Amino acid sequence: MIKKILVANRGEIAVRVVRACAEMGIKSVAIYTDADRHALHVKKADEAYNVGPDPVGGYLNAHRIVNLAVATGCDALHPGYGFLSENPQLTEVCNRRGIIYIGPSVDAIRRMGDKTQARAAMIAAGVPVVPGSEGNLKDVNEALKLAKKIGYPVMLKATSGGGGRGIRRCNDEDELKRAYERVVSEATKAFGSAEVFLEKAIVNPRHIEVQVLGDKHGNMIHLFERDCSIQRRHQKLIEIAPSPQLTEEQRAAVCDLGVRAARCVNYENAGTVEFLFDQEGRFYFMEMNTRLQVEHTITEQITGVDIVQEQIRIAEGQPLSYAQDQIQRRGYAIQFRINAEDPKNDFLPSYGRITRYYAPGGPGVRTDAAIYTGYEFPPHYDSMCAKLTVWALTWDKALARARRALLDMGVHGVKTTKPFYLEILGTAEFQAGKFDTGFIEKHPELLNYSIRRPPADLAAAIGAAIAAHHGL
Amino acid sequence: MIKKILVANRGEIAVRVVRACAEMGIKSVAIYTDADRHALHVKKADEAYNVGPDPVGGYLNAHRIVNLAVATGCDALHPGYGFLSENPQLTEVCNRRGIIYIGPSVDAIRRMGDKTQARAAMIAAGVPVVPGSEGNLKDVNEALKLAKKIGYPVMLKATSGGGGRGIRRCNDEDELKRAYERVVSEATKAFGSAEVFLEKAIVNPRHIEVQVLGDKHGNMIHLFERDCSIQRRHQKLIEIAPSPQLTEEQRAAVCDLGVRAARCVNYENAGTVEFLFDQEGRFYFMEMNTRLQVEHTITEQITGVDIVQEQIRIAEGQPLSYAQDQIQRRGYAIQFRINAEDPKNDFLPSYGRITRYYAPGGPGVRTDAAIYTGYEFPPHYDSMCAKLTVWALTWDKALARARRALLDMGVHGVKTTKPFYLEILGTAEFQAGKFDTGFIEKHPELLNYSIRRPPADLAAAIGAAIAAHHGL
Repeated sequence: MIKKILVANRGEIAVRVVRACAEMGIKSVAIYTDADRHALHVKKADEAYNVGPDPVGGYLNAHRIVNLAVATGCDALHPGYGFLSENPQLTEVCNRRGIIYIGPSVDAIRRMGDKTQARAAMIAAGVPVVPGSEGNLKDVNEALKLAKKIGYPVMLKATSGGGGRGIRRCNDEDELKRAYERVVSEATKAFGSAEVFLEKAIVNPRHIEVQVLGDKHGNMIHLFERDCSIQRRHQKLIEIAPSPQLTEEQRAAVCDLGVRAARCVNYENAGTVEFLFDQEGRFYFMEMNTRLQVEHTITEQITGVDIVQEQIRIAEGQPLSYAQDQIQRRGYAIQFRINAEDPKNDFLPSYGRITRYYAPGGPGVRTDAAIYTGYEFPPHYDSMCAKLTVWALTWDKALARARRALLDMGVHGVKTTKPFYLEILGTAEFQAGKFDTGFIEKHPELLNYSIRRPPADLAAAIGAAIAAHHGL
Repeated sequence: MIKKILVANRGEIAVRVVRACAEMGIKSVAIYTDADRHALHVKKADEAYNVGPDPVGGYLNAHRIVNLAVATGCDALHPGYGFLSENPQLTEVCNRRGIIYIGPSVDAIRRMGDKTQARAAMIAAGVPVVPGSEGNLKDVNEALKLAKKIGYPVMLKATSGGGGRGIRRCNDEDELKRAYERVVSEATKAFGSAEVFLEKAIVNPRHIEVQVLGDKHGNMIHLFERDCSIQRRHQKLIEIAPSPQLTEEQRAAVCDLGVRAARCVNYENAGTVEFLFDQEGRFYFMEMNTRLQVEHTITEQITGVDIVQEQIRIAEGQPLSYAQDQIQRRGYAIQFRINAEDPKNDFLPSYGRITRYYAPGGPGVRTDAAIYTGYEFPPHYDSMCAKLTVWALTWDKALARARRALLDMGVHGVKTTKPFYLEILGTAEFQAGKFDTGFIEKHPELLNYSIRRPPADLAAAIGAAIAAHHGL
């Protein structure tokens, strides 16, 4: 049984893991850089260690972090998402030093991390993939030849890419020629590998992903799907579970594909199989994320399963807590990534002091925040400062609750994506549950909102004005 | 359809109703006294009106409040709990002025508000009641005669009482003699009626209550039961749904009794039928609360039903949204009433400035708070400053989550019941789900806790100390 976990991450996901530890009676150890001295995960963990002045590098030094885990008496390590979470090196170092890695095997991370290997595995397992190159491209000429054969538009992708980076859509030969060197160079810089491959671009796809859980005893289940089609430049902003755009048959089909994809690498722990869902109702394997996702919250809300606790149990060698037929979904959940950005200024990050943070309350509202009143939101990291998750028995009630909770929530001192989400909620397409990954690009007018900064006691001011008018 | 609701209450329940209105697209009107100028319900409502300087009286003036509802264009009024919520006068004034009262009929309020009438109705409907007087007592001699017949201990109760007031346990003739005049005088002062009655005291009972919903079309359903046995001097502190001490047969039986009790007064809207559950497994009708309860949250968490929204729909004349077989419960929910009181000092109220309020987050946590950072908690009202509700798929997981969420929550500047609840959570009896209404009186040692005020960055301080010790 695991007794002490080093959380090799920061921000809200580190807080999330610390909370799971607390509920399981497991001690938690946080790490932090100088810039994160006052971060919430430092306050919430049982112990916290400074890993130096480098704001990002501190979270990327696998050897140093695992050394710290050993030195502080941890028996396991949770990678969170981002940073080293899909880096097989961290897993290997953990294995060598006798620290249980809370995640899949090195082999699964490697096979799914290499996009061409993953693609080949899917084809072998009968999971549909987007038509494209068999393996990596040799050069731009091979790319041009293949694109001609499968037809434009095509997507040029870094083999080791992920999270929306190292990916470019090309509508014709010229664009492909121009993009080739750029993606190769981006891939080399960002992922340390120059390998790229090519796929047919699916027009107006929906992003559907399946949450899976596998244990060390060969059990594999899914926790239904999520719809993450509301994206900006391949970055998810709003996620929904279950997808309002699937029939029950489509849902069953994609969940089955997710389990099949995970099985073919003997996947262990929590993972997510991402699919493109085209307008003709076909699913294509896109990639598998071999870690916890930002949006795992909505799956927790509809199934009641605590995914992080399951991850820890699986890492301990325990069998899954649930058989497939014990996983029941109820209602709809929507997650909003509250980013400290100014949507009206090309989503420019907006850092600084959180002068006031008010977490919304009442029924069906969950917050996973990295901020608190008085917190200085640092400029070194990604801009997500909180996740707001709402749940209700029906899609319509979830929409109404989403609007209420967004208005209820208070994040002051920085600009956030909150007002932009209220605009999205107001559209007929979103309300009808009909949108694809191009939704935000198709609706630039949604950025034309004006922020009304209400006085502190707006209701009383309105009341006084109405009373005066009517002589009450 | 209702378009604008006056919320005739304050604090967290007023905020709760305002939130339901917001989700239904209904405008909300708050009322406030001078002392409540900065209260959260004032900030959250669409409009807010000052009802004068009298801190309590402002919320008790039915005529003035209904006048305001009419003048501000409201078509309905929600009474919340406490204040005028079980006063048939408010309902009558609403009816006369054409304001929809969101609650039951005057007749139902009257019949259930009069304990002896309610008792007679239950006997007629075949709902078991505690052996006791048929109607009100004439004098102390009748009380003594009856007590001798049914056997001591007995409970002497004010006929118009409720909420734990106007009630006294008498273990022998002497105690009954002494108590009689006192209860009569208390009842006269508190409820304006000198009538009292007598019942056999149930020894070590559990408090089990059934949430019911009835519409104007004769539909009546239950939303399962709650266990509110953790009380101090008849005031509930911790509530649980479903009760961990019922078998499925007992659950079905008491829910059926709840529906039968509500049906016999043609009950409309949300109500709660309270039962005593004795150690031999028998249920006895105690009283029916003809309003929303503080602890409705836990029922919402296990069923997914938004009870306040259902109240509003029922008042609009709509049929219930759910048939009985559509009400499904899942998991366990526990509510903690976070009172601004000092448990170590005989639960003395602790008012003042909330220097910091941090709402706990993560999975399975709901807060309904009346406070915020910087709020001056006023001394004029009841001491509950927030409700913390946790939910998990199993009882054990709910217990673990409760502990985590209580520690996660931050209420600074006033003393609260939070540390006392952590002590209760630590007992084997609570963990086993075995407790009766005498639990707190039986465990005075739970008040011997010491509050550790951790430094702001405790985790980092511990980390630094351990690192220094090990030369890390």
